[in-house]
Amino acid sequence: MFLKSAWYVAGWTSEFETGKLYTRRIIDEPLVMMRREDGTLVALEDRCPHRWAPLSLGRIEDDTIRCMYHGVRFGTNGRCVEVPGQASAPGALKARTYPVVERHQWAWIWMGEPEQADMSLIPDVSLLDREDVYMHRGELNYAANYNLINDNLLDLSHVAFVHEKTIGRKVEGDDEPNVVTGAGAQPLPRGVSNNNWSIGRTAMQAPDAPITDQWMWFSYLVPGIFINHFRTYPAGTAERLNFTEPSKDLECISDTFSIQAVTPLTERSTRYIYSGAHRKTDMSPEAAAAIFGMVDEAFREDTAMIEAQQRMIDTGPPGTMGWIQADRGLSLFRKVLDQLSAEERGATAARQTESA
Amino acid sequence: MFLKSAWYVAGWTSEFETGKLYTRRIIDEPLVMMRREDGTLVALEDRCPHRWAPLSLGRIEDDTIRCMYHGVRFGTNGRCVEVPGQASAPGALKARTYPVVERHQWAWIWMGEPEQADMSLIPDVSLLDREDVYMHRGELNYAANYNLINDNLLDLSHVAFVHEKTIGRKVEGDDEPNVVTGAGAQPLPRGVSNNNWSIGRTAMQAPDAPITDQWMWFSYLVPGIFINHFRTYPAGTAERLNFTEPSKDLECISDTFSIQAVTPLTERSTRYIYSGAHRKTDMSPEAAAAIFGMVDEAFREDTAMIEAQQRMIDTGPPGTMGWIQADRGLSLFRKVLDQLSAEERGATAARQTESA
Amino acid sequence: MFLKSAWYVAGWTSEFETGKLYTRRIIDEPLVMMRREDGTLVALEDRCPHRWAPLSLGRIEDDTIRCMYHGVRFGTNGRCVEVPGQASAPGALKARTYPVVERHQWAWIWMGEPEQADMSLIPDVSLLDREDVYMHRGELNYAANYNLINDNLLDLSHVAFVHEKTIGRKVEGDDEPNVVTGAGAQPLPRGVSNNNWSIGRTAMQAPDAPITDQWMWFSYLVPGIFINHFRTYPAGTAERLNFTEPSKDLECISDTFSIQAVTPLTERSTRYIYSGAHRKTDMSPEAAAAIFGMVDEAFREDTAMIEAQQRMIDTGPPGTMGWIQADRGLSLFRKVLDQLSAEERGATAARQTESA
Repeated sequence: MFLKSAWYVAGWTSEFETGKLYTRRIIDEPLVMMRREDGTLVALEDRCPHRWAPLSLGRIEDDTIRCMYHGVRFGTNGRCVEVPGQASAPGALKARTYPVVERHQWAWIWMGEPEQADMSLIPDVSLLDREDVYMHRGELNYAANYNLINDNLLDLSHVAFVHEKTIGRKVEGDDEPNVVTGAGAQPLPRGVSNNNWSIGRTAMQAPDAPITDQWMWFSYLVPGIFINHFRTYPAGTAERLNFTEPSKDLECISDTFSIQAVTPLTERSTRYIYSGAHRKTDMSPEAAAAIFGMVDEAFREDTAMIEAQQRMIDTGPPGTMGWIQADRGLSLFRKVLDQLSAEERGATAARQTESA
Repeated sequence: MFLKSAWYVAGWTSEFETGKLYTRRIIDEPLVMMRREDGTLVALEDRCPHRWAPLSLGRIEDDTIRCMYHGVRFGTNGRCVEVPGQASAPGALKARTYPVVERHQWAWIWMGEPEQADMSLIPDVSLLDREDVYMHRGELNYAANYNLINDNLLDLSHVAFVHEKTIGRKVEGDDEPNVVTGAGAQPLPRGVSNNNWSIGRTAMQAPDAPITDQWMWFSYLVPGIFINHFRTYPAGTAERLNFTEPSKDLECISDTFSIQAVTPLTERSTRYIYSGAHRKTDMSPEAAAAIFGMVDEAFREDTAMIEAQQRMIDTGPPGTMGWIQADRGLSLFRKVLDQLSAEERGATAARQTESA
Repeated sequence: MFLKSAWYVAGWTSEFETGKLYTRRIIDEPLVMMRREDGTLVALEDRCPHRWAPLSLGRIEDDTIRCMYHGVRFGTNGRCVEVPGQASAPGALKARTYPVVERHQWAWIWMGEPEQADMSLIPDVSLLDREDVYMHRGELNYAANYNLINDNLLDLSHVAFVHEKTIGRKVEGDDEPNVVTGAGAQPLPRGVSNNNWSIGRTAMQAPDAPITDQWMWFSYLVPGIFINHFRTYPAGTAERLNFTEPSKDLECISDTFSIQAVTPLTERSTRYIYSGAHRKTDMSPEAAAAIFGMVDEAFREDTAMIEAQQRMIDTGPPGTMGWIQADRGLSLFRKVLDQLSAEERGATAARQTESA
């Protein structure tokens, strides 16, 4: 089950060159994408409405796509413009099209009814445009359901364990890791927010680096957009602020953010598109590159754990998962998705009643 | 779903040597085939009726097959002739047998009720016996349903697109390929026929070769036997004949035919057994060999396209395929198969009523 | 379908070292096993009751297992002892545990209700402790249902055919193999027994070795424990004894036994754990090693045949297997399993009624 009425990230805008066809599967629908001569990025279903050969095996001819099975040709509006050996192109032969918007480095695709596409629902990832930071981009595929990846990001208590050797934070002289949990998560209109102080040092830092107080905050937005910030302050700051939110103006040691997208491909495969950014004034390019390498490794640690979890879910005997306080964030987000899916089913039923 | 009451091609007769067991899966039934000492080719179900071990892992002993699991031995009529350690062979232990006929280079197997086997239903492929031609034989497996391969052969409009770099025909000075469509297909009692004039030159020919007029005609017969001819004539012939059928006696430049068999293995795998022939008086052996190499490459182009189409069908959201005029041939043939399957179900039901 | 209320062999006791986690799947339930500091071997379900990450990816900390996804920690009694970032460990978060007994070299696990675990039901494999023999141990996996492997062992008539080149016995000057069948099998309270005389020589022996009379007897016990003996006597012994059981005191030429366990992993995969033993007084260590090498090869012959049989069962058209007299042993054993499964379902239903 997927929410259809949402903007999904199909990739970085820079991936799509004019003159090439790109194939994608999003929420289990096959897509072919192309950039028109005028620069517009478009998406159609990736099957010729004639006999379902993939249009992505076709050929671009003057902003149209010719299916290379029987030569039937389509405009980027989905309309058939030519059937070889046939006098006129049948109007009934039409490929479905999907609204596409390029905004802040990402190509967003609306998978619901085209007339319902509402650009105001595109999450604000304008941070991706910032130029005063070292920006790192990555992508990887999970052999797992998207919900498990959302869950993972919504409860950062996993960081101290899954990533104990990479990006987890520890307090000096304390064997217990310094846990950032999802227990304090709060609902947003289309998502969940969370924030925490944690005091310590990460595996990414030199072992003799001074301890810092870290303020973390994030928004997690439908359909699976993670906007995550970390700022570190001199030790003692959290206590001085009585563990409340620091003012945005308060000078910090380092300022980091990470924007990530979880795009379901099928029920058991998911595309994870991520970025990380460090303020250029905080470190050298080499230091940033070292951190980014560590982050890439950490994300492979997540992949291994989540894919193992998925296998347990798929092969294990039936049962019910347990509950800890840290699950508050992921539970809130699952409720948001469930609520929107219920609304979507209601709206679809209403439209069908109207048209009947 | 498969039509059972039909003769399927199990292979070239030359494939089957005395003293060896051959395993086949046809319409999802496991078969073991062997040539007896007297030369007769026989087929049994490839599972020992005792505990279902494959008989094809067994041993031939004096025209019987001994299952090499527990040593039970069967005659080629399916009757058990020995159970090791047991005084007599139980009559109830019987392997199913299938009628087999060797005719015109191919081994044909009847997959329906043995008593319904009617040798007059074997399509006439006597052209395979001709000796005045260069004959090329090939086989390949498709990871696709047999219907998609029948469809492909029944609408040759695909040739100009799938095979644009190999065996497709083009008109000189015309960017549009010269399309041979299935639009003019006509029903046969157990199949479909089609014919066309096309004017041009194929990628197989030298680029400065003279344009020719090509007359193509084929029969496509149950369960999936393609008998296809091409004759080329000097440019202008088609127009002179007002695009009607040329007399068989009319001298042609080249005379080619291709006999092909589509044999379903399972719902998602199919054996494609093909031949091509060129009149020896038309060309040198080297020229024929070059064409045959191009044809092999073209058939791999079909495989890639049809397997991609199959994946779209298997993974895509539900929907209905579209229709163009070229689909007339394949639609007629699907109707023939549907009609015969309905008759088969009726006959089976009638026999069951009788015996009840 | 699996019988749960039984002791399954999880492996050799020597496989389990303190300080490591071992993952097993038995009757399609995921298990994690560990040896505590005090030497006790324990088994828990291999999924964290929190979010189902495998505990086998976790870390042992002072005889507890910490899940390395979110750091939740469990005692070997399955009780949660720590949730990082949460004041107290929730009692509801509990991992299922399984009774484990180490006896006679094997680790036995009870897969039924823990309170029903009855150690008197562990089959007696004390022969595994004998020190006056050369003992050979092996293990392999089958891509097949456990019933097919039980069947195989319960009808040794297969030995002459599957193993005709390795451990099968032949009578000199006789082309017909000397068949030991399951036809004489007798029921035991929780299993089946069988015995036979056979006269000949095995492929393992030198071709000019003297013929011997071999007395074979076995017990096959729930859930799939094979206790098999072979003794050879000078030619003529069987006839002299009128083919009755020889006294245990009667001096024999060689004395061999083999203890084997068939442990279902899933419906389509099975672990086969086996041993073979030869009296040290019967042969040199080199001779024993040569026989053991032949036995390993023979078991790969079984694997090939049974996996082929399984594929036929899984892909073939529906049908019913046949019957020969040799099937008596395997039929009796299947009845024992069916009977125990029916009792188990009855007991489960009764407990549910009581607690309702």
